[in-house]
Amino acid sequence: MKKTYRKLNEFDLIETYFSPLSKTLEGAFGLCDDAAVLTVPPGESLVVTLDTLVEGVHFLKGSDPGPLAHKLLRVNLSDLAAMGAKPASYVLSLALPGDVEPLWIARFASALGQDQETYGIYLAGGDTVVTPGPMTLTVAAHGTVVKGRELRRSGARPGDTVYVSGTLGDAAFGLKCLQGKIPGLTGEQRKFLTGRYLKPRPRVDLGLRLFGLASAATDISDGLVADLGHMCSASGVEAVVEWGRVPLSDAVGAILAGSPQEIPTVVAGGDDYELLFTVPAYKTENIPSLAKDLGISLTPLGEIIEGASRGKVRVVDGDGGEIPLPSGGYVHFGDS
Amino acid sequence: MKKTYRKLNEFDLIETYFSPLSKTLEGAFGLCDDAAVLTVPPGESLVVTLDTLVEGVHFLKGSDPGPLAHKLLRVNLSDLAAMGAKPASYVLSLALPGDVEPLWIARFASALGQDQETYGIYLAGGDTVVTPGPMTLTVAAHGTVVKGRELRRSGARPGDTVYVSGTLGDAAFGLKCLQGKIPGLTGEQRKFLTGRYLKPRPRVDLGLRLFGLASAATDISDGLVADLGHMCSASGVEAVVEWGRVPLSDAVGAILAGSPQEIPTVVAGGDDYELLFTVPAYKTENIPSLAKDLGISLTPLGEIIEGASRGKVRVVDGDGGEIPLPSGGYVHFGDS
Repeated sequence: MKKTYRKLNEFDLIETYFSPLSKTLEGAFGLCDDAAVLTVPPGESLVVTLDTLVEGVHFLKGSDPGPLAHKLLRVNLSDLAAMGAKPASYVLSLALPGDVEPLWIARFASALGQDQETYGIYLAGGDTVVTPGPMTLTVAAHGTVVKGRELRRSGARPGDTVYVSGTLGDAAFGLKCLQGKIPGLTGEQRKFLTGRYLKPRPRVDLGLRLFGLASAATDISDGLVADLGHMCSASGVEAVVEWGRVPLSDAVGAILAGSPQEIPTVVAGGDDYELLFTVPAYKTENIPSLAKDLGISLTPLGEIIEGASRGKVRVVDGDGGEIPLPSGGYVHFGDS
Repeated sequence: MKKTYRKLNEFDLIETYFSPLSKTLEGAFGLCDDAAVLTVPPGESLVVTLDTLVEGVHFLKGSDPGPLAHKLLRVNLSDLAAMGAKPASYVLSLALPGDVEPLWIARFASALGQDQETYGIYLAGGDTVVTPGPMTLTVAAHGTVVKGRELRRSGARPGDTVYVSGTLGDAAFGLKCLQGKIPGLTGEQRKFLTGRYLKPRPRVDLGLRLFGLASAATDISDGLVADLGHMCSASGVEAVVEWGRVPLSDAVGAILAGSPQEIPTVVAGGDDYELLFTVPAYKTENIPSLAKDLGISLTPLGEIIEGASRGKVRVVDGDGGEIPLPSGGYVHFGDS
């Protein structure tokens, strides 16, 4: 008979796998108290975000614990990055089916530990419960930001240039790869795209550099068009994106060369976890050196414009003609 | 066809039902940004706790949204109370089945709003996702405490008196009532007991008064014996509880008069959400006036003793004989 985690009680589970993840955070008390005590440095605020991943909805059933742990933590780190916050700590809710094995939990915790080192974030507390349904994982992540220096979605102004980090569409095609929907890729292309889906790279360092440069910022989780739309809504403006300037990886370029009808996957597919930000014209000259400093690409792909339809985003081709997209882009609740 | 919440997209859902719950919290930005910004007053720390409730595990399938919202928030408030923290804000994860109706969500949000007023806590952010499985709800709650003044589980010392607020066992019998397992109660008794299960009263005001009096504190969620055991483990001590001093409501007294074999339900059943705390002998004279001030009962029911078995808890009768209990009391993961 397999040894499942239900043979451990919750306290053993915490002591064995999770207390070690809290050891550098004094106020976590080894996860042995009713709550954690977080110290916020004088002059700073605490930034809090929360994301939930459900098996079969946000990740495929049978996903490996390592990539899953990375994704769970990193989607939250991406939100902190979008606010310009420095990662500090997180609390974790694990609702696990009763047949999860201790080895699964060990690998999950180990991957969390790796990301803790990478991003300087530590486990402060949590809850572990059994569920008769799909695995359901929640992280609430805490970061710090100098008071008043947080990045917001609402500051985009007409004339600002719209920038994005990295390349877009990789993760959406990576998911399609895992679902067997993209034939004809090389092994290397497949590995790159699925890696971008499974292991996002939250742009924490970039977020920390954008205060004073960006007028607005957000991360792209629901797709370029949807998240730019949210930013424009919050800012009371519209935006135009030039398709020809959207940064693409070689792998996505190769797919689109053969299947141009896949353009919506790039601009409306989700899970990019890149930063999208707007920069006033007189500050754009600073962006190339920032990109060089950080060793990442920062691409101007559009412009904020005045308009009566708050939140409207158009994607145009080289002639200025609008590229048709599925209504509203990718919306979590619109799948029914 | 019924209108279900899946006909609303996530942004409409947030705007209609949840943004109003955040309006008094400036840094929540109306739930329209990637994260919330919390301000911690100078000289204070932030206390963070998290609890998850799963349908069919922590609450009955088909539970009314109002009591469920109260319970979700209050189990977290009870943890803040156990740390001596003042409630401030919370983030909310809702994983909801696709057939949940807007009216259900409206009532859920309305109950959260009532508790926000009662306890002075406000919604700062969250995530709402669809699940193919049971409803799964998580709250991470934030409170504030003057630096260094948090209550801990680890300070109990031999000779300290063990106190508990309110009465014990009501909620465990309330659950049994809902399951049809306790016949012969009056309507009033049934209403009282189920109310104690469905709508815990977190002892926030008490927690705020215990610094300087209590050597250790925790809340009772897993039952008196289990939670006193955790406190004793953290403190490196043992404890003895006198059964005859355990505070009982009239309803539980009536049940036990006819069914003395139900004693373990009182001391090992869960969901009391009372505070359990230890007080050094020279400070116990302050407790009666504190109880009077707060208008609640605070009952001395046992003593902390030295012992080789860290965390051991014995419940004894009038002759000092040990009352046998199911091994280890109530443990979340021990149900398999």
